[in-house]
Amino acid sequence: MTEPIDLNQIGQRAKAAARILARATTEQKNAALYAIADGLDANAERILAANRQDLEEGRANGLTDALLDRLSLQNRLAGIAKDVRQVARLPDPVGETFDETVRPNGLRVSKRRTPLGVLGIIYEARPNVTVDVAALALKTSNAAILRGGSETLRSNTALVSVIREALASCGLPADSIQFIESTDRRYVGELLRLHQYVDMIIPRGGQSLHQFCRENSTIPVITGGIGICHLFVDQSADLDAAIEVIHNAKTQRPSVCNALDTLLVHEAVAAGFIPRVIERLGASGVTFRLDPHAWAVTPNPSGDTRLAPAGPDDFDTEWLSLILGIKVVSGLDEAIEHIYRHSTAHSDGILTRDEANAARFVDEIDSAAVFVNASTRFNDGGEFGLGAEIAVSTQKLHARGPMGLRELTTYKWVVYGENHVRA
Amino acid sequence: MTEPIDLNQIGQRAKAAARILARATTEQKNAALYAIADGLDANAERILAANRQDLEEGRANGLTDALLDRLSLQNRLAGIAKDVRQVARLPDPVGETFDETVRPNGLRVSKRRTPLGVLGIIYEARPNVTVDVAALALKTSNAAILRGGSETLRSNTALVSVIREALASCGLPADSIQFIESTDRRYVGELLRLHQYVDMIIPRGGQSLHQFCRENSTIPVITGGIGICHLFVDQSADLDAAIEVIHNAKTQRPSVCNALDTLLVHEAVAAGFIPRVIERLGASGVTFRLDPHAWAVTPNPSGDTRLAPAGPDDFDTEWLSLILGIKVVSGLDEAIEHIYRHSTAHSDGILTRDEANAARFVDEIDSAAVFVNASTRFNDGGEFGLGAEIAVSTQKLHARGPMGLRELTTYKWVVYGENHVRA
Repeated sequence: MTEPIDLNQIGQRAKAAARILARATTEQKNAALYAIADGLDANAERILAANRQDLEEGRANGLTDALLDRLSLQNRLAGIAKDVRQVARLPDPVGETFDETVRPNGLRVSKRRTPLGVLGIIYEARPNVTVDVAALALKTSNAAILRGGSETLRSNTALVSVIREALASCGLPADSIQFIESTDRRYVGELLRLHQYVDMIIPRGGQSLHQFCRENSTIPVITGGIGICHLFVDQSADLDAAIEVIHNAKTQRPSVCNALDTLLVHEAVAAGFIPRVIERLGASGVTFRLDPHAWAVTPNPSGDTRLAPAGPDDFDTEWLSLILGIKVVSGLDEAIEHIYRHSTAHSDGILTRDEANAARFVDEIDSAAVFVNASTRFNDGGEFGLGAEIAVSTQKLHARGPMGLRELTTYKWVVYGENHVRA
Repeated sequence: MTEPIDLNQIGQRAKAAARILARATTEQKNAALYAIADGLDANAERILAANRQDLEEGRANGLTDALLDRLSLQNRLAGIAKDVRQVARLPDPVGETFDETVRPNGLRVSKRRTPLGVLGIIYEARPNVTVDVAALALKTSNAAILRGGSETLRSNTALVSVIREALASCGLPADSIQFIESTDRRYVGELLRLHQYVDMIIPRGGQSLHQFCRENSTIPVITGGIGICHLFVDQSADLDAAIEVIHNAKTQRPSVCNALDTLLVHEAVAAGFIPRVIERLGASGVTFRLDPHAWAVTPNPSGDTRLAPAGPDDFDTEWLSLILGIKVVSGLDEAIEHIYRHSTAHSDGILTRDEANAARFVDEIDSAAVFVNASTRFNDGGEFGLGAEIAVSTQKLHARGPMGLRELTTYKWVVYGENHVRA
């Protein structure tokens, strides 16, 4: 581990492996996925022992319980192996032909779906990402270079060794999945400049990691995963149903990017509705940041410790916890304007019975996912039918919103002629 | 022009314009395209006078005739206006709904095609790019910030002023198309870091421009346009037809990226075929760089001034001129291996009557466009049926090969529920 790691060699090996993977059959890839899942089961003891060491060191270093929970594999390994078998059962997008045409001159032109090549994945804490990413990369015939968090170095090393053994046992290159076995941060910077070998960088972590990748990468980066999410309760909304959608969007899993951050309420229903929101969500432990108008329509707000006046940055904050901002707006126009100024374009929705307002909201809100009468929590690869998800993109190139298997591919143009020449 | 230019302001104005453009109807956008074409016709004298000044200054600065020809608009303006009217007649991709599904829980999920937002275009010489890009951006409801070459500052300024007048006359924001009216290179660097406002950078120029953009941009960059292109003549090829395809690929327009650079010839046909290639293409002014085997099978090569032994870099050179490298290979395997090592993954093809070899070539060559029995010159948006082309991408994200209107869009997920909550 004190030996310097040669990222150029890792890149070269990944590219060579990718070339072999590109020709692997679906059956070969699925066999390797089942071998990985079986390997995780068979080597559970070794993996969990490594993970316990990471946990002990984390505890000694004063990591929070929440973080320790995120890096724990204890009682989770069987579930992770099951997810790998689930990826094996998904359809293989590689090799699909689409957009077929015959040109007026008789040239037969089509697109064929192909792997991207080599993925670079930079992530934090959760060691399950190591297995998830390896499975999705393998299924799409991509090689991957992984750089995990320093808190899980032992867990990741154990997991990657099982994955590589499984690949080799199925006749696929072990170097399809490589792991940068070092906590030295300089290797992140080096990986980001390995454009000769790496085709796509996917950061999985907080805002600062995404920013670092965007600013330092010479390889295309998929940024995303930061959601300041809104629901707008229109005048015509079914208020009883709206309460439950808002409750779900805020409380079903408050620590994730598609959880609700800001509730916008039409002024015509604010006085009756906002106290009901506070009652229902407050009972689930939610606290609230109210704009002056919402504060004014709430009975005795100063006497309720769950309520506070919204501060200057509160409507630009991704809460990731049981906090909800509430703002009263004069109508759809102001709601759209507020979302335009404050949303991270991840997940925003309207609750309404007015079809024209729903249509205008969908037309004018430019977010990765726009919802009508549904919880923002549905912005998810599984919920949208992708079968799996490697990231949620909030940038606009290549893929937007949840990225599944197809989003880990590109295409080539395939052209058949009969000795055609261009005029 | 000595006043510093505030790129942040340009970015802000572009983003505001893009928001209005996103709601413009197809009819409004087409009306503006026709107004631009009419404006080019009506203001031809002013535009051509500005262009003559650029040409005079270029001549005084010692620009080559080839470069002067590239920056000339003389006798070309009517054709450029006609191309704009052609873009108006293309179908509008914005607003298309696709991948519609109803989830088992009843949630209706679809994707809707939307504009990217703001394009940053960095280009050299040719002022027709100014109009092409403006037309394609407008048709797809994207705003654009243009940074043209210093040799055409006056021409571009005149063109952009006509475009902006036409936009305003149709009630669309003039700031949809903005031009950085300065030759100071620092603005290129500033544009590349304007990720708050700009969604995609398209460089149009040589390798060094592409490299500069990739290394300095915090915005996704579409790289491409560099083609080291191959044709492999298999043992089974129809040799008479093959000669004509090779002739077309090399000579039909040698200065462009999809022109042929290297010819690979199966050793079984080399001795008979290579002299015929030299005869047919040589008559069109082509000169040749031969590998030792090709040299050996050519009668009296030292006596032919059109022939030279291939140097160490000749098979890694994009010729952009009437030069052709020729190499003899032992068969399909070596051809694939040579292309893997030397191609820029732009346009590569096989000439064969063997279907299995054609299929293997198509499977294993990972280039933006792969050809069977056709000239590499067909790698082009118009030839592939896209109607227009803003760039040819050789990177793998977002779009590969020719990029037309659809490739200037992204999508958003649109989700309709009946007050659905996530379980």
